[in-house]
Amino acid sequence: MGKVVTFGEIMLRLKSPALERFFQSPSLEATFGGGEANVAVSLANYGMKTAFVTALPNNAIGEACLREVRGFGVDVSDIKMVDGRMGIYFLETGSNQRPSKVIYDRADSCIAKAPADLFDWKEILKDADWFHVTGITPAISQSAADLTLAAVKAAKEMGVKVSCDLNYRKNLWKYGKEAKEVMSEITKYVNVAIANEEDFQKSLGISAKSDVESGELDREVYKKIASTAMEMYPNLETVAITLRESKSADTNYWAACIYDGKEFYVSRRYAITDIVDRVGGGLIYGLNNYSTQGEALEFAVAASCLKHTISGDFNRVTVKEVESLMKGSGSGRVER
Amino acid sequence: MGKVVTFGEIMLRLKSPALERFFQSPSLEATFGGGEANVAVSLANYGMKTAFVTALPNNAIGEACLREVRGFGVDVSDIKMVDGRMGIYFLETGSNQRPSKVIYDRADSCIAKAPADLFDWKEILKDADWFHVTGITPAISQSAADLTLAAVKAAKEMGVKVSCDLNYRKNLWKYGKEAKEVMSEITKYVNVAIANEEDFQKSLGISAKSDVESGELDREVYKKIASTAMEMYPNLETVAITLRESKSADTNYWAACIYDGKEFYVSRRYAITDIVDRVGGGLIYGLNNYSTQGEALEFAVAASCLKHTISGDFNRVTVKEVESLMKGSGSGRVER
Amino acid sequence: MGKVVTFGEIMLRLKSPALERFFQSPSLEATFGGGEANVAVSLANYGMKTAFVTALPNNAIGEACLREVRGFGVDVSDIKMVDGRMGIYFLETGSNQRPSKVIYDRADSCIAKAPADLFDWKEILKDADWFHVTGITPAISQSAADLTLAAVKAAKEMGVKVSCDLNYRKNLWKYGKEAKEVMSEITKYVNVAIANEEDFQKSLGISAKSDVESGELDREVYKKIASTAMEMYPNLETVAITLRESKSADTNYWAACIYDGKEFYVSRRYAITDIVDRVGGGLIYGLNNYSTQGEALEFAVAASCLKHTISGDFNRVTVKEVESLMKGSGSGRVER
Amino acid sequence: MGKVVTFGEIMLRLKSPALERFFQSPSLEATFGGGEANVAVSLANYGMKTAFVTALPNNAIGEACLREVRGFGVDVSDIKMVDGRMGIYFLETGSNQRPSKVIYDRADSCIAKAPADLFDWKEILKDADWFHVTGITPAISQSAADLTLAAVKAAKEMGVKVSCDLNYRKNLWKYGKEAKEVMSEITKYVNVAIANEEDFQKSLGISAKSDVESGELDREVYKKIASTAMEMYPNLETVAITLRESKSADTNYWAACIYDGKEFYVSRRYAITDIVDRVGGGLIYGLNNYSTQGEALEFAVAASCLKHTISGDFNRVTVKEVESLMKGSGSGRVER
Amino acid sequence: MGKVVTFGEIMLRLKSPALERFFQSPSLEATFGGGEANVAVSLANYGMKTAFVTALPNNAIGEACLREVRGFGVDVSDIKMVDGRMGIYFLETGSNQRPSKVIYDRADSCIAKAPADLFDWKEILKDADWFHVTGITPAISQSAADLTLAAVKAAKEMGVKVSCDLNYRKNLWKYGKEAKEVMSEITKYVNVAIANEEDFQKSLGISAKSDVESGELDREVYKKIASTAMEMYPNLETVAITLRESKSADTNYWAACIYDGKEFYVSRRYAITDIVDRVGGGLIYGLNNYSTQGEALEFAVAASCLKHTISGDFNRVTVKEVESLMKGSGSGRVER
Amino acid sequence: MGKVVTFGEIMLRLKSPALERFFQSPSLEATFGGGEANVAVSLANYGMKTAFVTALPNNAIGEACLREVRGFGVDVSDIKMVDGRMGIYFLETGSNQRPSKVIYDRADSCIAKAPADLFDWKEILKDADWFHVTGITPAISQSAADLTLAAVKAAKEMGVKVSCDLNYRKNLWKYGKEAKEVMSEITKYVNVAIANEEDFQKSLGISAKSDVESGELDREVYKKIASTAMEMYPNLETVAITLRESKSADTNYWAACIYDGKEFYVSRRYAITDIVDRVGGGLIYGLNNYSTQGEALEFAVAASCLKHTISGDFNRVTVKEVESLMKGSGSGRVER
Repeated sequence: MGKVVTFGEIMLRLKSPALERFFQSPSLEATFGGGEANVAVSLANYGMKTAFVTALPNNAIGEACLREVRGFGVDVSDIKMVDGRMGIYFLETGSNQRPSKVIYDRADSCIAKAPADLFDWKEILKDADWFHVTGITPAISQSAADLTLAAVKAAKEMGVKVSCDLNYRKNLWKYGKEAKEVMSEITKYVNVAIANEEDFQKSLGISAKSDVESGELDREVYKKIASTAMEMYPNLETVAITLRESKSADTNYWAACIYDGKEFYVSRRYAITDIVDRVGGGLIYGLNNYSTQGEALEFAVAASCLKHTISGDFNRVTVKEVESLMKGSGSGRVER
Repeated sequence: MGKVVTFGEIMLRLKSPALERFFQSPSLEATFGGGEANVAVSLANYGMKTAFVTALPNNAIGEACLREVRGFGVDVSDIKMVDGRMGIYFLETGSNQRPSKVIYDRADSCIAKAPADLFDWKEILKDADWFHVTGITPAISQSAADLTLAAVKAAKEMGVKVSCDLNYRKNLWKYGKEAKEVMSEITKYVNVAIANEEDFQKSLGISAKSDVESGELDREVYKKIASTAMEMYPNLETVAITLRESKSADTNYWAACIYDGKEFYVSRRYAITDIVDRVGGGLIYGLNNYSTQGEALEFAVAASCLKHTISGDFNRVTVKEVESLMKGSGSGRVER
Repeated sequence: MGKVVTFGEIMLRLKSPALERFFQSPSLEATFGGGEANVAVSLANYGMKTAFVTALPNNAIGEACLREVRGFGVDVSDIKMVDGRMGIYFLETGSNQRPSKVIYDRADSCIAKAPADLFDWKEILKDADWFHVTGITPAISQSAADLTLAAVKAAKEMGVKVSCDLNYRKNLWKYGKEAKEVMSEITKYVNVAIANEEDFQKSLGISAKSDVESGELDREVYKKIASTAMEMYPNLETVAITLRESKSADTNYWAACIYDGKEFYVSRRYAITDIVDRVGGGLIYGLNNYSTQGEALEFAVAASCLKHTISGDFNRVTVKEVESLMKGSGSGRVER
Repeated sequence: MGKVVTFGEIMLRLKSPALERFFQSPSLEATFGGGEANVAVSLANYGMKTAFVTALPNNAIGEACLREVRGFGVDVSDIKMVDGRMGIYFLETGSNQRPSKVIYDRADSCIAKAPADLFDWKEILKDADWFHVTGITPAISQSAADLTLAAVKAAKEMGVKVSCDLNYRKNLWKYGKEAKEVMSEITKYVNVAIANEEDFQKSLGISAKSDVESGELDREVYKKIASTAMEMYPNLETVAITLRESKSADTNYWAACIYDGKEFYVSRRYAITDIVDRVGGGLIYGLNNYSTQGEALEFAVAASCLKHTISGDFNRVTVKEVESLMKGSGSGRVER
Repeated sequence: MGKVVTFGEIMLRLKSPALERFFQSPSLEATFGGGEANVAVSLANYGMKTAFVTALPNNAIGEACLREVRGFGVDVSDIKMVDGRMGIYFLETGSNQRPSKVIYDRADSCIAKAPADLFDWKEILKDADWFHVTGITPAISQSAADLTLAAVKAAKEMGVKVSCDLNYRKNLWKYGKEAKEVMSEITKYVNVAIANEEDFQKSLGISAKSDVESGELDREVYKKIASTAMEMYPNLETVAITLRESKSADTNYWAACIYDGKEFYVSRRYAITDIVDRVGGGLIYGLNNYSTQGEALEFAVAASCLKHTISGDFNRVTVKEVESLMKGSGSGRVER
Repeated sequence: MGKVVTFGEIMLRLKSPALERFFQSPSLEATFGGGEANVAVSLANYGMKTAFVTALPNNAIGEACLREVRGFGVDVSDIKMVDGRMGIYFLETGSNQRPSKVIYDRADSCIAKAPADLFDWKEILKDADWFHVTGITPAISQSAADLTLAAVKAAKEMGVKVSCDLNYRKNLWKYGKEAKEVMSEITKYVNVAIANEEDFQKSLGISAKSDVESGELDREVYKKIASTAMEMYPNLETVAITLRESKSADTNYWAACIYDGKEFYVSRRYAITDIVDRVGGGLIYGLNNYSTQGEALEFAVAASCLKHTISGDFNRVTVKEVESLMKGSGSGRVER
């Protein structure tokens, strides 16, 4: 099948070692990450033809980032190297009752300041079958929101399918617009929407009553959210909702559901210790490589589950490994 | 509010890397630690004015220790730099069925050999409102016991509140005195006593029948211990007892109770994987900053719970973080 | 008591750091390991006189391996240093739903190519009371199978007890023989056989119906396997079978049973998070140092349980530590 | 003697490990550094009462920086914790023919955006005897230049001596003013100026012909620069000029000269492999603790020479160590 | 300009940490390297279109290698992923009088066992302008020699320029042929030969008397070697000879000369502490991007000189950095 | 030939990482070392039968030390495991003008407190041909001096040759005796004395005028020292004197001379950057394996020279490597 293009910000990710608090040791793990780049890397790992589009600083840090993403087999030829800085986020991994902590230093990054004409979307999308964006990029600046809108419009015109991970982040959205105002416009050009319940509410104003505290999954609530979204945005063909259940402070479950206007399918669920919210890459692979939305979703949820066993932002797993979990017993025997 | 002064030994803490046994790799993590210093560091992190008093070797190791403690904002101007050595303890972190292991090399440390006139307590305590000691210092040598007694006597004379973590260590107390003989004298000058059940028995000879094996907390037993202590030592205003329940080999709970002669209050309990015994720093903060002993205890227990997620001996948490756990749902969501 | 000799391959073990996937960081942990060497190291740690026999490359890597094994007090004077290469295995430690992964690069190692006359078994075993082999060595090459057979024959002739861990590995056995063909011949010279259920089936063709899925231990099944083995191989004096029960994806239990033709004994079981299959070293120690097979087995199972808390292949524990777990409450209190 | 106050930016310093290029390993050394903070740390190490003034972000990174500087005994009570980001510089250490490389990401830092009334200089300098600034702070923004000017004016009014390290950086000065315009105004309030030849030319427009290529030190040229500066700025009491001679590509020498309007003194020179430019901290100590400017300069040059043997930005040496080099044979014998 | 294709073995490079001997610490640096891959990486770093051709194992190690090489922008689409193992070399870095040490474990690698029809040279070279091989690949096995010969023949037929780094390694060449026999045949298809004096003698039987001991460069000797080679192999257009002079045990110089049948040009020389033998990548870049062979050679020698300041096998430098050394003063000033 | 026994203290060696000052990072390299153990390890590396005698604490640290020494093939069966502590020394490696720094924490170690009857010298030395001690052990306590004297007396009685490295350390000798008083008695039982000029003066009171400042080796001075020693101690058969010449601050040379009462031989000298003082192990090997004292000395000096390229205290080199330097050109070519 054809090529998937993803667009968004990639940041320098500086993590304190192991489970240490910031600066207990004079050292930081230095890798790169960002939701859209992660989707590109995952799909390249799964063997799909993939390109990632962003703007990077034309210095040794931008070049290292380019090298890292390209190493996975992602096409980076449409990444622009410009004057400026790279967004940074500092990460401290939590443990037991101590939550993880993120400090953002991403203002004024290359991509936040990228002018509207930096990317020629017609050229970039000319071989593409699928285009993926998230709700993070439109949240960082007016020009980034404009870029995103221009991109999804171009995709629609060219008949390229568009997926969007709504991904609401309340600490962004500081340039004067509200999420609903911007995202409801972008969503008009989207074919596949991915989000959790809060994202639907904050980005599109769609909600339904659920009972997270009880820890029980309320199928009807999620089905209602999905069908409402489809009514409001008739262009939507598929809606995927990620779910997190808390049985107790110690036991979390991770699952997702999917709706195509006809069948409402709920995936197998996995016991997890950390939170795994994103299913983007896996779902795109699934929808392109399996015949049913159920299989597509199971692939996405298994891939997302495996991700949280891997350090760094990129999901370093193969289709074989995801399918082994998706179909298998999860017994955890050593592979010799 | 005013200044808290703590007094005791601080040691060089040499730990094997990660979960390795000693010397699997030719490397040791090298930090500093000790119960009384940890109370000082915690209180400084909580924003209180704090001083730590000890004796350190006047070489590069002692200076590094000074730098570390001072970095947290603890006043170190009354620490004495003298000829001698620093106590050392080697630590190997256990895992599952393998217990942690400590090898002490603390004999003849600067503080164990400190002469009775090394510290001018009247001068040191002149701006203090609170003075904190533990049962460890009086256990290491006769002169250290004498120093502790002189200190608490001076505090009482000057109207400075005294807290004492009884903290019985059977492998110390080798200089010819028994814990009961020394600690019962010191306790006469204490306002706030902190201990677990075993400490009360070994240090003050106070006991009551409980049923640890059953894993059930017996409120009456702990209340009896607390009230007996208050009868024997009328100077005691507050008694806090730390509790550890074993539901099974895999599940431990951590809580504490407090008694002021009127109300007996038992804290929320937390599921833990390691043992957390100490609440000193948190309780001092709590008693000085909340209006009820219940809130004070909840703060102390939450702080102690967070401590066991942090490597090294010092509790690198803020009031905001402790209160977030104390009041919150403990859901462990990433803080962005 | 006398000396234990073990014989087999020792490999260079190259592990990705912490829980990283291969080559996330440009670094590999480099230690040595192999089932038979591990038995030798364990027994030396337990204070028994022990020798390990193998062939190593006469270069700096072989010498480092020699230094490592000898450091534990294992007699290495019968190890042959020859031209050639050392077998290597690459290890990536799994986490949660992601299984561990092993890549073998062990073809054409010194020991796989060792000629039949490289070892003078009469000389090597002259002071020995016990000789230990596994089903791995005969699986790597015809000459290695011949060497193993020659060794156990010599042992039998000299009155040296022979133990064998059947240890079936389906990815070996590539030189044209089937496991059953070779192992059934070797087993004729064995006094103590150790294996799990699958090993008995694949190596000796002995099976009985069990129900692993139900997670329930079926005592009768295991007793049947053990008694069948004893009937087929009258030379067998003791049969030990290792067991793994899965209560759920999150909870595994580890135990073993033993049969001497008279009493069938099942050990205490331990909750484990990783798989621990081997009991070889502990059982040999146990059978030589306790008066009942029950105690011997409990020692072996406790030792094996402790092993999985230790990084690297060698079991760095003492008899005191194993007995503390075997007899104790497993409460995990710090040892000060 | 009294207190020294220094004012300027302190940055997060992210260095590639050992001699690696950026991102060869996924790790960065993370410490803090900046010229003015380094002077404060050096003086605190030398036993002087010292304060450092800056603005830091009120997050975990700013707090870690505070902890690091305070650890050395520097008074940090006038540091302002504000909303914003910390300047960052990325450092790659060169080797042989490959030069070191610095990538700055310092725009819009807390200190660059600090408003004119953030600091109450009258209050800050009330116990000070000496105030130290550099030419870097006025180069980063108009408000930083205003802050610096306000500070030196306040110092002059209060009779506090002012030293300034001119330190011209051509890649800064981007806010529309030229160095000469700003620095010539600031220099009117300076008592002790420190700089190399290029700094004098670029910051104050003072030059004289020298012959760096020949590698020979031309005493007359440097004396001329110093006397011209004193004529132009009669407030100057002392001028120190740092010198670097290149005998060949492999051999560099490091020295400095000093002029008080009467005596022109040239220091001993040291063979160095890296470039050491700064003498600020040592000179302030020297001028305050020795009776002649020659001794003061020798102390400064020896301290600066020792600095380049120490990783990180802070000069972790004691007066004893500097004097040992300054007076001694430099034989490099182990100190036992 | 067009594309450069290089062909050869790439190995796993396992290095002891820093300057340690093998296994002092239980760790090895794990990267990848090989002469022909290094040429490809260097050229990609210099901005040229480059492809690398080899065979790699189809496992996680082969994939990591692919990721690393592709990250630099090298086209890896003609690399074959096959069953088998990757060659390994263990490296211990020397220091002062202790030489570096290499242990090879490269027998039976994928590339050594690659069948003659694994690569379709006509397809691989169809867009290429330049093809680069070395004398190492033909030395490892008969089939690797056959592959190399087939490749250079195809290149000649297709009008693709061929460069060959003769690179004689006496410890290879174990399959029954002598270097001269094989290399003299391959050289018939080469346009640009690169080698040191020993390589010419051992690979092609060309020698002339020089006086390495004296440390003096004898221009006439090298010119004679170059002209003899050109007479014997009329297809040769350019001959480059690398030179190493020892002034003393402590001082080595590194240079090279080049001959095009008309002009004999000797490069600038650099003082080095380690040995740098290879100029392949730089020379290919130079010959394709500069108008004179002199400039081409200076680029190559400067690039090679910079290489030895970089850890790992790949030359992580840019054209700008090489030209800065080639044209500049080598003063080593920090680049800010 | 026969067995060499060495006797002395082995300490825990805690070094700051790389070239860092103490506690810049919270980590220490943890190995073991001591002059006499190093001689044993060197000789075992050279293939000689060797035993090391000391007292170690019977805890995990003592056992790790035992494992390390035994790994090299040194016989450790006469090491006593007793209650007590291990001596520690903290090491910070210097750089350029910053000297290395050692902080000793070795008081009250097992060996310093070992009772006179802990070792049965008749039994220990019964298979020995050579016994080696140093001037360090008699310096640490009266009982250690008594033990050393008892040992050398026993050796003399049994016809075992005794070598002694005088090794004067002024910071030891604190128990009330002077070095001369003790060492002159011990030297009466010594056959081979090794020392530098200062050791002869401080330990035995033998001196002669030399001119170290001039950097010129004065043969006559050293010959005079050697012959005087032989006159005073007729039991001495061989005297070796280590030499260090300073040509300049940057250039040091390392050599040694030897005298057997007839021939005075001066070794080749090596350029070094660090100080290498000890030749003990190499000389013992040399005197036992070469026919002339000149060859013996050359071996010792080359071995000592190689030592300073190796991290840690133990000399991890082989006879082949030492002879390669001793006989070779020292060209530093990579060994492939």
